[in-house]
Amino acid sequence: MHSTRIEELLQMFNERAPIARYFGMKLSFTAEGNAVIDLPYNPNLDHALGGVHGGVYATLLDSAGWFTVAAAHDISCWIATSELSIHLLAPAERTALRAVGRLLKQGKRLDIAEMDLYDEQGRLIGHGVGTFVILPNVPATLKIEAEP
Amino acid sequence: MHSTRIEELLQMFNERAPIARYFGMKLSFTAEGNAVIDLPYNPNLDHALGGVHGGVYATLLDSAGWFTVAAAHDISCWIATSELSIHLLAPAERTALRAVGRLLKQGKRLDIAEMDLYDEQGRLIGHGVGTFVILPNVPATLKIEAEP
Amino acid sequence: MHSTRIEELLQMFNERAPIARYFGMKLSFTAEGNAVIDLPYNPNLDHALGGVHGGVYATLLDSAGWFTVAAAHDISCWIATSELSIHLLAPAERTALRAVGRLLKQGKRLDIAEMDLYDEQGRLIGHGVGTFVILPNVPATLKIEAEP
Amino acid sequence: MHSTRIEELLQMFNERAPIARYFGMKLSFTAEGNAVIDLPYNPNLDHALGGVHGGVYATLLDSAGWFTVAAAHDISCWIATSELSIHLLAPAERTALRAVGRLLKQGKRLDIAEMDLYDEQGRLIGHGVGTFVILPNVPATLKIEAEP
Repeated sequence: MHSTRIEELLQMFNERAPIARYFGMKLSFTAEGNAVIDLPYNPNLDHALGGVHGGVYATLLDSAGWFTVAAAHDISCWIATSELSIHLLAPAERTALRAVGRLLKQGKRLDIAEMDLYDEQGRLIGHGVGTFVILPNVPATLKIEAEP
Repeated sequence: MHSTRIEELLQMFNERAPIARYFGMKLSFTAEGNAVIDLPYNPNLDHALGGVHGGVYATLLDSAGWFTVAAAHDISCWIATSELSIHLLAPAERTALRAVGRLLKQGKRLDIAEMDLYDEQGRLIGHGVGTFVILPNVPATLKIEAEP
Repeated sequence: MHSTRIEELLQMFNERAPIARYFGMKLSFTAEGNAVIDLPYNPNLDHALGGVHGGVYATLLDSAGWFTVAAAHDISCWIATSELSIHLLAPAERTALRAVGRLLKQGKRLDIAEMDLYDEQGRLIGHGVGTFVILPNVPATLKIEAEP
Repeated sequence: MHSTRIEELLQMFNERAPIARYFGMKLSFTAEGNAVIDLPYNPNLDHALGGVHGGVYATLLDSAGWFTVAAAHDISCWIATSELSIHLLAPAERTALRAVGRLLKQGKRLDIAEMDLYDEQGRLIGHGVGTFVILPNVPATLKIEAEP
């Protein structure tokens, strides 16, 4: 894991990803290169009865897995989430959330990552495993989209 | 399926769910009682390279499954998403999205629903299966949250 | 789908796969090229209380998905199951079983297939979605194993 | 975890489960009550090219999760596997296998368990997460089946 790769990924998510800003998510990395996604409580992301929507669990888990995989690969490739197996272990209400990824398997064609989701008391409230495909290049259409 | 149940669910999501408003999602039902979630293109939900974030796929699929299950059960119970198995079949860019649910199994303790996600050309771009637990009552904490 | 490919796959499973013989499974294909796995009731595959073990559901669903994908690709590649999302919808007891696959997405790197499991009354009792990786060659070690 | 419960479960799988005998699987428990399923290499469970069939991964992972959950609950209830999310991390050939379960969440209605699969060199080659429903009674039909 090269620090320029980490810096590029931090800048990609924290400064250029519209959904990161809209949700209030922030990416960091552990010393081992595992991605951490933090989200302060955002009442806009609640469902009708005042709990955090399951889709928010999925967004944090997906992002933590994606960036853990991205940090383990070269700067010239692109990663696509192909599959997410998510278990919601407990409801979350009015709480900050933190998702942490780690690799289960690193391959040439695809990586499998495992992701944990915690509330602000450190309780494990969600779990995910994801399949992330390693593409040799950033897709052309997405490249154009990414221009400033 | 009673029409008052459907009306209650439409009102719950379309008028009282903060995330529905924040994303721009709208709930409707087919004649068979299958939930449909529509989301016009919202650039705030893009990832850094200009595609729709996988967590948005998950949010739409979860919501379509949840409301399909909710419509099949009595007004006094509460539904909790327990598990989501999601496959992302194709990337989505600058497109409206539609998720549609249907029951795979209806039970006393839990339902299994299947959900499809389409882009605005009607291409199938995502697929989910979810486990939704039927709780005999709305959880007390959530009830209090739901008071106006 | 070329008929030589289908014949090769039928011969591979029905004549050369030890597990097919041991379980009593038989592969066929629908006119559209979807794989069908049939298993007459085999009491050796029951769990302690006399129902069919969940692992048997998984074996049939995996096989139906694998051969549906294999039939859609060229004879020189190899398929590896990478992920299975399985829902057991109802218990099965003393019954023949049939699993049927169909493609959800066909790609260069991986296919996603959906699989249904039926009992001998035609009830849907299991459901799966799987990720099947397309490898450009049969792995060398496996090739050697396959020699007569 | 009471030792009579553990003894009952060991006896149920190791002496009364037809599939345990047919595959050659053996159940034990760690000191913490996590179920361990061991399977010496059984060539009857290979696929056509000489590797272990994915359904065997699933059978071991399901069993390890099921018995981990069963050990954490009272003797009068029954457990039903409802969902399995399985990732196959590496192929297995001519090797003994060991699956180990652990609880991710224990509940009144359902438990979520995580399961790892190892080959005889101790490499992690498979991973699963499962949803196991807690039923208040052993289903009547299954009870009758279980009579000697």
